[in-house]
Amino acid sequence: MRAEYLDILSVPSISSSEEYRDEMRRCADLLHALLQEIGLERVQCLETKGYPVVYGEWLHQPGQPVILLYGHYDVQPPGDPGAWESPPFTPTIRNERLYGRGAVDNKGQLFIQLEAVRTLLEQRGSLPFNVKVLIEGEEEIGSPSLPGFLERHQALLACDAVVISDTAMLGSGLPSVCHALRGLLHIELEVVGPAQDLHSGSFYGGAVVNPLQVAAELITGMKDKQGRIRIDGFYDHVRMSAEDRRLIQEIPFDEAAIAERIGVPSFGGEADYSHLEKVWLRPTLEVNGMEGGSANTIIPHKARTFLSCRLAPGQDPYDIQQKIERHLEVHQPAGVRIQSSFSGHAYPYLLAADHPLVTAALASLEEVYQRKAYPIRAGGTIPVVEWLSRIYDVPVVMLGFGLPDSGVHGPNEQMPLAQFAKGVETLVNYYLRIGREGKQWLSGTNWHKG
Amino acid sequence: MRAEYLDILSVPSISSSEEYRDEMRRCADLLHALLQEIGLERVQCLETKGYPVVYGEWLHQPGQPVILLYGHYDVQPPGDPGAWESPPFTPTIRNERLYGRGAVDNKGQLFIQLEAVRTLLEQRGSLPFNVKVLIEGEEEIGSPSLPGFLERHQALLACDAVVISDTAMLGSGLPSVCHALRGLLHIELEVVGPAQDLHSGSFYGGAVVNPLQVAAELITGMKDKQGRIRIDGFYDHVRMSAEDRRLIQEIPFDEAAIAERIGVPSFGGEADYSHLEKVWLRPTLEVNGMEGGSANTIIPHKARTFLSCRLAPGQDPYDIQQKIERHLEVHQPAGVRIQSSFSGHAYPYLLAADHPLVTAALASLEEVYQRKAYPIRAGGTIPVVEWLSRIYDVPVVMLGFGLPDSGVHGPNEQMPLAQFAKGVETLVNYYLRIGREGKQWLSGTNWHKG
Repeated sequence: MRAEYLDILSVPSISSSEEYRDEMRRCADLLHALLQEIGLERVQCLETKGYPVVYGEWLHQPGQPVILLYGHYDVQPPGDPGAWESPPFTPTIRNERLYGRGAVDNKGQLFIQLEAVRTLLEQRGSLPFNVKVLIEGEEEIGSPSLPGFLERHQALLACDAVVISDTAMLGSGLPSVCHALRGLLHIELEVVGPAQDLHSGSFYGGAVVNPLQVAAELITGMKDKQGRIRIDGFYDHVRMSAEDRRLIQEIPFDEAAIAERIGVPSFGGEADYSHLEKVWLRPTLEVNGMEGGSANTIIPHKARTFLSCRLAPGQDPYDIQQKIERHLEVHQPAGVRIQSSFSGHAYPYLLAADHPLVTAALASLEEVYQRKAYPIRAGGTIPVVEWLSRIYDVPVVMLGFGLPDSGVHGPNEQMPLAQFAKGVETLVNYYLRIGREGKQWLSGTNWHKG
Repeated sequence: MRAEYLDILSVPSISSSEEYRDEMRRCADLLHALLQEIGLERVQCLETKGYPVVYGEWLHQPGQPVILLYGHYDVQPPGDPGAWESPPFTPTIRNERLYGRGAVDNKGQLFIQLEAVRTLLEQRGSLPFNVKVLIEGEEEIGSPSLPGFLERHQALLACDAVVISDTAMLGSGLPSVCHALRGLLHIELEVVGPAQDLHSGSFYGGAVVNPLQVAAELITGMKDKQGRIRIDGFYDHVRMSAEDRRLIQEIPFDEAAIAERIGVPSFGGEADYSHLEKVWLRPTLEVNGMEGGSANTIIPHKARTFLSCRLAPGQDPYDIQQKIERHLEVHQPAGVRIQSSFSGHAYPYLLAADHPLVTAALASLEEVYQRKAYPIRAGGTIPVVEWLSRIYDVPVVMLGFGLPDSGVHGPNEQMPLAQFAKGVETLVNYYLRIGREGKQWLSGTNWHKG
C-alpha cells in the first residue's frame, strides 16, 4: 500500500462535524498532490458552499469517450473508539487486510480507481480514453453542495459516462456490477393534540384523542399487515419486467444466512415477491422512528413519526409526495392536527442490465475473478448517481469492490489486500475494454433512462 | 394563615430527589410539633423503608367511631423557578390567595383538616368522635412504603372510616364530594426486531419486519378508531348502573370550555357515552409514550410502547393483565419478539354515592357554600384510597377543596384564603354531623365494597 494512500487514510476527514474542518482541507490538499503525482492535469480544488471538490483530468484521446470517475474523500465518524482493534485513523495492515476508517468507503475504493489510472499511464504512457476525476467531500452528509456544483460546472465536467466505485459486491466469491438503485422520500408526520401533556385520568382519559393512537392508526392505515402500501396510486408507475425478475432469480442468495446474521426469526413483506425482489424491485414505506409522550400516565401533547419510502424504478418522489398528501387529506382524523413535511427527494436510478457499460464490467470481473459475475441492484439510494445521470444525461455504472463484511460505517472497517489488487486489475481490464469499443458504442444507446 | 403553616410550606419537602432528604425529615419534625400543639396525643414519627409517617391521635369518645384523617407532607418539585411569580418555597399571600408549592397539594388541604380539628378542640374541649391522623411523605412518588406500613400497623391505625382532603372540587361554585376512582395498570410492550438498527435500503427494506410497524399494529389491534378496546373480555366486569349515569347527567359540565382550555379542536372516544361517563365510568387503554428508531433511514432494532389502562369499578388489574397477555399470545406477530411487562396494578375504588359519609358531606357543603353539591368521581387513581379501604375494610371519602385552577403540580400553585376558610367550616360542620349520627350509622353498611 503506497505511502500517499496511507497518509490520506490517516486524516480524519469527517464531514459531519465542524471540528474536522481543517482536516477536510488537508485531505483535499493531499488528494490534489496525489492526482498531480499520478499524471493528471489541470488538477485543482474547486470551491463549493461546503467542502471543496478535487478535480483532475487527462484528455489526450480525441474521438474517444470521456469517462468521469467519481469518488469522495469524506468519511463517517469512527463511533466508539474502543470498538476498534487498531485506531481508526492509523491505517494498519494485518491478516492481509488494510484496517482503518475509509479503507473501503470511499478512500480505499478511490485508490483502486486511481491505481488503475496510474497503472495504465505508467505501463502504456496513455489512457485508453479521456478521463475526468471528481472527488467530493460531502457524500456522508448527503452531498448538499453537489447538485449546484454539477449544474455550475457542466462544461468542465461534460462526459459520456460515469464510473463509480463506492458500492459492494454481493460476496467475496460473487463479483457483481450494480446498475440500479431505489429512490428516496422522507416523510415526517407530526400529530398534534392538546396544548400540553395531559393527565390520563381526570377529565381527559377516554375523551381526548391521543396523538400516539392516531399516529399508529395513520401508520397501519398506510400499510397493511401483508406489507401492501394502501396509498391510492402508490404502485401506479412501478416498472418490473419478467426479465428483471429472471435476472434476479439467477443470483445466489442465502436468505437464512442473512436472517441469522441480523438476528431475526423470519422475514416479512409482500408474499408474492422473493427477498431480492422485495428489496430491489419493490418500493417501501418504512417507519424509521417514532417519538412521543413518556412512561408516565399522560395523554401526550404530540407524536412525531419519521417515515421514508424507498422508490422503485418508474416512481417519482414528487408524485409520491402528492399521493401521500392526498391520502392524509382523505383520512384526516378528528380531534388532532396533522403536520406533514417531505424532504430528501431522490429519484430511483436504472441502467439497463444489458447496457454495454454493464456487460463489459461483468466480462472484466469474470476474467479477473474467474467466476460468473452478476448484474445486481441496490435497495438503497445514492443520490449522486441519479444527479450525474440526469444533469449530464449519461449512463452511470457502479463497479464497487466493497464486501458484505467490510465494516463500512462501523468499527474495524477493512479491505483485503487481495481485493484491492483484483479491483485494480478489473478496472484496468475494464478501461481497456471500453477503449477498444469506443465512443459510438457508449452513446448509441438510451438504455440508461431510468 | 398561622405561622406554623407558613413554616411548613417553606420546607422544600420534595420526595422525588435524594437531595431533599434532610428537608423531608425537617418537615416531618415540624408536623410532629404542630400535631402536639393542636392537642393530639401519642404524636410520633414512625419509620418506614422510606420517609417517616407522622402520627397523632385523640381517642376520648368511647362508643363513637374512629375516623382516620390521611394526608401527605411531600410535594412535587417546583419545575422552572422562572415560571413562579413568587418563589415556590416562600409562601406569599396576594390577591387574597396563598401562593406556594404545596399550598393545595397537600399541605394546604392538610392544614384545613388540622384547623378543623383545632377549632373543635379549642371551642368545645373535645372532638365529636375519635381521631387518628396519618401523614405520609411519599405520596408524590407513588407511596412505595405505605402498603407495608399499613399492613404492619393495623392495630394502631384501626378505624371505622377515612376522610381525605387531597382532591379538587368540580369548580369554585360547584362544591362536590369524590366517591369513586378508576384503577390503573401499566403495560410496557417492547417489540424487538433485528439485533441492531438496519439500513432501510439494501437487503432489508421491504423484507425485514419493522418493530415500529408492528407496535403500531399492536396498538390499533387493541383499540379501534371508535375508541372500543378490542381485548377479549376487557369489558366483562365493568359495572355501570342507570343511577350512576343519572347522577352524572345532573352535573353541570362545560365540555367546550375544557376543549378550549386544553387546546383540542374536538373530543373523541366512545360515541355512546357522555364526556364525564367516558372519563369516570369507562375504562381506557392509552398510549402514554412510544420510542424507537430515529429520523435516519433505518429499520429500528426495537420499539418501546408505554401503555396504561384506567380501570372502571368492577375491573381487576390482574384479570386485565391476563386478558392482555392472552391477546398478545393470540396475535403474536411473525418476524419479531414481543416482551411485555405489567406494573402499577391499582384497583378501582367505589363508595356508593348514597353512603352516609357521602350524603353527610354533601349536606355540609351545601350548608356552607349555599349551593347544590354533587357527588363526583375522579378519572384518575389514588392508590392509597383503595389500600386503606381494602386493608382496613372501611369506607374512604374524598372531601377535597382544591380548585381546577389551583396549579397543582405546576407553577404558581395557590389556594384562595376564602376556600381555606370555607373548607375548615365545612369540615367542622361535617365532623359534628358524623358525631351526631354515631358509629352504627357508619358501620351498618357495606356500600363501600367497590
